[in-house]
Amino acid sequence: MRCSVIGATGYSGAELARILLGHPYVSVKSLTTRQNNPESIRNYIPAIPKSSGARLEPFNFNRVSENSDVVFLALPHTAAAKLAGKFLRKGKLVIDISADFRLKHAADYKKWYGFKHPAPRLLKGAVYGLPEVYRDKIQNAKLIANPGCYPTGCLLALKPLIAEKLIDFSNIVVDAKSGASGAGRKLSEATQFCEVDENFGAYKVNRHQHTPEMEQELRHIARSAVKITFVPHLLPVLRGILTTVYAFKKKKVSKAQIFSSFHKAYGREPFVRVLEESSFPTLRHVQGTNFCDIGVEVDSATGRVIVISAIDNLIKGASGQAVQNMNICLGFPEDAGLTICP
Amino acid sequence: MRCSVIGATGYSGAELARILLGHPYVSVKSLTTRQNNPESIRNYIPAIPKSSGARLEPFNFNRVSENSDVVFLALPHTAAAKLAGKFLRKGKLVIDISADFRLKHAADYKKWYGFKHPAPRLLKGAVYGLPEVYRDKIQNAKLIANPGCYPTGCLLALKPLIAEKLIDFSNIVVDAKSGASGAGRKLSEATQFCEVDENFGAYKVNRHQHTPEMEQELRHIARSAVKITFVPHLLPVLRGILTTVYAFKKKKVSKAQIFSSFHKAYGREPFVRVLEESSFPTLRHVQGTNFCDIGVEVDSATGRVIVISAIDNLIKGASGQAVQNMNICLGFPEDAGLTICP
Amino acid sequence: MRCSVIGATGYSGAELARILLGHPYVSVKSLTTRQNNPESIRNYIPAIPKSSGARLEPFNFNRVSENSDVVFLALPHTAAAKLAGKFLRKGKLVIDISADFRLKHAADYKKWYGFKHPAPRLLKGAVYGLPEVYRDKIQNAKLIANPGCYPTGCLLALKPLIAEKLIDFSNIVVDAKSGASGAGRKLSEATQFCEVDENFGAYKVNRHQHTPEMEQELRHIARSAVKITFVPHLLPVLRGILTTVYAFKKKKVSKAQIFSSFHKAYGREPFVRVLEESSFPTLRHVQGTNFCDIGVEVDSATGRVIVISAIDNLIKGASGQAVQNMNICLGFPEDAGLTICP
Amino acid sequence: MRCSVIGATGYSGAELARILLGHPYVSVKSLTTRQNNPESIRNYIPAIPKSSGARLEPFNFNRVSENSDVVFLALPHTAAAKLAGKFLRKGKLVIDISADFRLKHAADYKKWYGFKHPAPRLLKGAVYGLPEVYRDKIQNAKLIANPGCYPTGCLLALKPLIAEKLIDFSNIVVDAKSGASGAGRKLSEATQFCEVDENFGAYKVNRHQHTPEMEQELRHIARSAVKITFVPHLLPVLRGILTTVYAFKKKKVSKAQIFSSFHKAYGREPFVRVLEESSFPTLRHVQGTNFCDIGVEVDSATGRVIVISAIDNLIKGASGQAVQNMNICLGFPEDAGLTICP
Repeated sequence: MRCSVIGATGYSGAELARILLGHPYVSVKSLTTRQNNPESIRNYIPAIPKSSGARLEPFNFNRVSENSDVVFLALPHTAAAKLAGKFLRKGKLVIDISADFRLKHAADYKKWYGFKHPAPRLLKGAVYGLPEVYRDKIQNAKLIANPGCYPTGCLLALKPLIAEKLIDFSNIVVDAKSGASGAGRKLSEATQFCEVDENFGAYKVNRHQHTPEMEQELRHIARSAVKITFVPHLLPVLRGILTTVYAFKKKKVSKAQIFSSFHKAYGREPFVRVLEESSFPTLRHVQGTNFCDIGVEVDSATGRVIVISAIDNLIKGASGQAVQNMNICLGFPEDAGLTICP
Repeated sequence: MRCSVIGATGYSGAELARILLGHPYVSVKSLTTRQNNPESIRNYIPAIPKSSGARLEPFNFNRVSENSDVVFLALPHTAAAKLAGKFLRKGKLVIDISADFRLKHAADYKKWYGFKHPAPRLLKGAVYGLPEVYRDKIQNAKLIANPGCYPTGCLLALKPLIAEKLIDFSNIVVDAKSGASGAGRKLSEATQFCEVDENFGAYKVNRHQHTPEMEQELRHIARSAVKITFVPHLLPVLRGILTTVYAFKKKKVSKAQIFSSFHKAYGREPFVRVLEESSFPTLRHVQGTNFCDIGVEVDSATGRVIVISAIDNLIKGASGQAVQNMNICLGFPEDAGLTICP
Repeated sequence: MRCSVIGATGYSGAELARILLGHPYVSVKSLTTRQNNPESIRNYIPAIPKSSGARLEPFNFNRVSENSDVVFLALPHTAAAKLAGKFLRKGKLVIDISADFRLKHAADYKKWYGFKHPAPRLLKGAVYGLPEVYRDKIQNAKLIANPGCYPTGCLLALKPLIAEKLIDFSNIVVDAKSGASGAGRKLSEATQFCEVDENFGAYKVNRHQHTPEMEQELRHIARSAVKITFVPHLLPVLRGILTTVYAFKKKKVSKAQIFSSFHKAYGREPFVRVLEESSFPTLRHVQGTNFCDIGVEVDSATGRVIVISAIDNLIKGASGQAVQNMNICLGFPEDAGLTICP
Repeated sequence: MRCSVIGATGYSGAELARILLGHPYVSVKSLTTRQNNPESIRNYIPAIPKSSGARLEPFNFNRVSENSDVVFLALPHTAAAKLAGKFLRKGKLVIDISADFRLKHAADYKKWYGFKHPAPRLLKGAVYGLPEVYRDKIQNAKLIANPGCYPTGCLLALKPLIAEKLIDFSNIVVDAKSGASGAGRKLSEATQFCEVDENFGAYKVNRHQHTPEMEQELRHIARSAVKITFVPHLLPVLRGILTTVYAFKKKKVSKAQIFSSFHKAYGREPFVRVLEESSFPTLRHVQGTNFCDIGVEVDSATGRVIVISAIDNLIKGASGQAVQNMNICLGFPEDAGLTICP
């Protein structure tokens, strides 16, 4: 299969290109950028071998349409929405790592992202690309909306508890901490070294645009409304999201049931690792990998449940998950291109 | 007044010595260490002027008894408990920055710290040195138990809400993130650079020894039981604790009441700054200072209240607060020695 | 004395304002910014007490002329050159922390900074504000050109060796490593967190604009030409410059002579600390202080001399040195406002 | 081929195990540790797939002798020297990543490492495993002494200039800066987070034990004595060494000759990348890879030559180079197991 990355110089786009260049079953065709005189691809993917012929090129729709079967969109919001339909009409598999196709209701884009969605008709057909929830649908998808980084960490932490209705849905706290690459390559004072280094703080408290995505997907899993309090924080690290989730178990639910729900949900998942009791994940364990590690604590006396998940925001939270979705959709082994120690 | 620091080479002890050496109303007598051939004080307090005569010395009880009116104990747990009584009997003001006199019940030391308290009779008379709660008692104290770093951040975040009974006491989440100096100077694999740098994770999930201290003091403020879920995390920074507290407001409580409770509680406090609505603190704002900065968010629709506090764990969370307590007790201006821009 | 800071929101300007607000012998009048609706000064100087009335204001020449005796210019290059003359004509003491008055020859500005100097006539009268070299002249200065951060670290490392002609002047290597605050607050991709963190590299190799400043001042000390090779590197830290200088001692010069030259030069200097043999400075020892720490190694067999100096680039490398210069010029104790532990 | 890693829980040993587990042409047999109850291999190699059967085991000579053709020794100094002979007598290929077989003269171990070499007779037959210098000998080696991290960065920076005699051999400065993983996993105060973070300094100034290794190998390349001044510094980063080398070109040597020497030496090397003029490497470009990136600056007027090299100290500076050596010796493609984007 031939694939291309539209927007290969952002942090997620470059990571996607890096993974695809090492993938055993695909050939990489176009790696595009908006720059007119693109810098060398080596500046974005230093690990690329000296002998590689890969290079950056300006985006050209016809060229990509002809040379690719799979098109990854790694573009700013709204840019993907404008382009996806054109590739779909050419019969391409489109995997979008922006937020443009994650929400089901066009009105939510207005409310949370502040723009009028350019292609609302496509929203219904887009498949939310979280393999641990939608693997079946992903197999037949034409347009995959790759999940956000925060939602990936939050949804994997909560899925077993929500699906088996083990916790109170009205009182869930999601306290998430993300490395700085989550903000992308765009210049801003907030992401200057002297602002981030040795610092730590919350941002978009209770109003982050990933909130409706989490609530939409939790509702899907629960088959009823789920309300979360979500506060993201900026960590002085390059990569990784640690999500600490606080919930209350239902009265009759035992600790054993809770642990069992995680093992049942993820025992066979190639990229979710449930840690043994009293162990909790750190970013180090997942950086550079497509894993989501999960640790669980149950306080039987008070009924409190704490779930901590860790992912690499650029891999399981973006590019790695996009490749996992492609693998599922195209019938490749699910971990093709995603293992460092095969 | 003449003062000494027993244990001046730990991170908190050295910071205490640094502050006291710059204090306008005290003279520093003994700075002690357990080392037999103490290194230069400059290795621990690089900012000390070339002309300073300050030096480290081995601990000698008689010497300190004679040369000091105020004795700061900056020792490992249990060591302070063994020593405090001897200084008290000599009529010294004792300010202990270990945990040895913070808990009212000796049994709690067995349960949470794993040791039999060596001086349980002193517990009752010790004053918990959080000026924003106990200023009156501190004025007449003989033995001050300086609060823990996590409790300081948590208690200041919750005090107005608890004191005015604006929130549900049974459902409070305290998600705290601390810099590495909180672990002290003791060697451990967990605090090696290659373990902490670019990493992040929770530790002692739901079982940190500061939990009973927080619940004891919240109960004091509330005049009834308060139960918290407390999860500390280790940040890859040198200094600072950011605490994100999640609670539910009582039904009839308005957003205005909540903000007003903070302004009432802290408007005249020299070291607590309540930020304006939609502003939230970061570690940068408090590093190197004795401030506790607090930001508040109220979601009227759902009733959720989020309070975020930031302190420097070595200053407001330890040494600065110890000096603030001394100032109160001795009748100095409360911010003496604690301002950088007087 | 009344003083003002023109440009108080850059990293150096804010640090200057912070130091001056705590200075015992001056009152701070205007702290100016180019912003029309200036943010709170607390965002730039978090340590400022709650009760402080200090605030930011747009720059107004007449206002500053009337309210100040000393004017600190903390402006981008060329802006200071345009303004200094106007304040000088009003009889103000002007201390400029930009590069605009450091070089004696206007042509060098064209060559190294790329601009035509707007006030070349002022260059001759400006005093280079390195107290350890020019203390006498600083006492009578009207216009003080505060040294660059790299030159401060380099010149203090080399002064004794050059002044006593102990080393070969034709073969000096200056390998300097600076924290990121040296680049200032201006937005740039090179100073984004994800570019600097966990990274390290050289920049402006052999062509940094501080090179002519170092060579000019070394020539002044030597009374003959000195040629250096200078390579600056960017460290993933907020503050500090470590400079490793490599030279060859002249044949008959002994190790004792070399150490003695440093003790003679700096024994009475309040802000230069020569470490004992086999000790070398680290950034930690000088961060937050006005000290320059210096370690010396002599390899008698081969004749190599290694000198390592450390400064805080924002303090001894900028704002602290500016205040030291003011203190000297106005007859205050040289360390007024510059000690943390008096 | 079957291989084992003796000492797979140090930073280099674990990285070696990780690379070998992903190598297409070898099977990993024993990964040993001195721990009696070894922790899970996942704690050391988090990227390992869930399905991997790899585990840690206590070292057993007979077991490794039977199950392996290639034995990698990743042990502390002297431990490797004691073991290597036993494996050699069993006909195994031994690749040692300690310093135990790098120096040709046993006396140098006494002088620089402070121990009497336990197997001096093996020193002569050991091949120094720097492929860019000794590729031919490595093909027939039985015992490969994998180069130190600092020597790798230094030797690759200097080889073309030394081999073609383009610079003065008596006046070379090597200023190297290394990330903290170079110090290994052993506990020490110097490598605690609070000592390293936001800090920077030199150590073992002019007396680092890698100095004789560099001079020995430079002498081999030069066919005459080469004397360097070497100062290592500790960077607050996890991985990477940047080496800035200063030399003087011989009078008649042109800039073109110098650049040409690098292109000739490394044009066909799979893992050395010579950057174009005015470009210089950063750690980011080589972290996680087996590359050595090199930038060159020539100041024709003064004759100074500056060469900057960057490597990942755990990969090209240790484990990756060990695998490169194995590949050469066993006739595999030289980059087998060492590319991320094949």
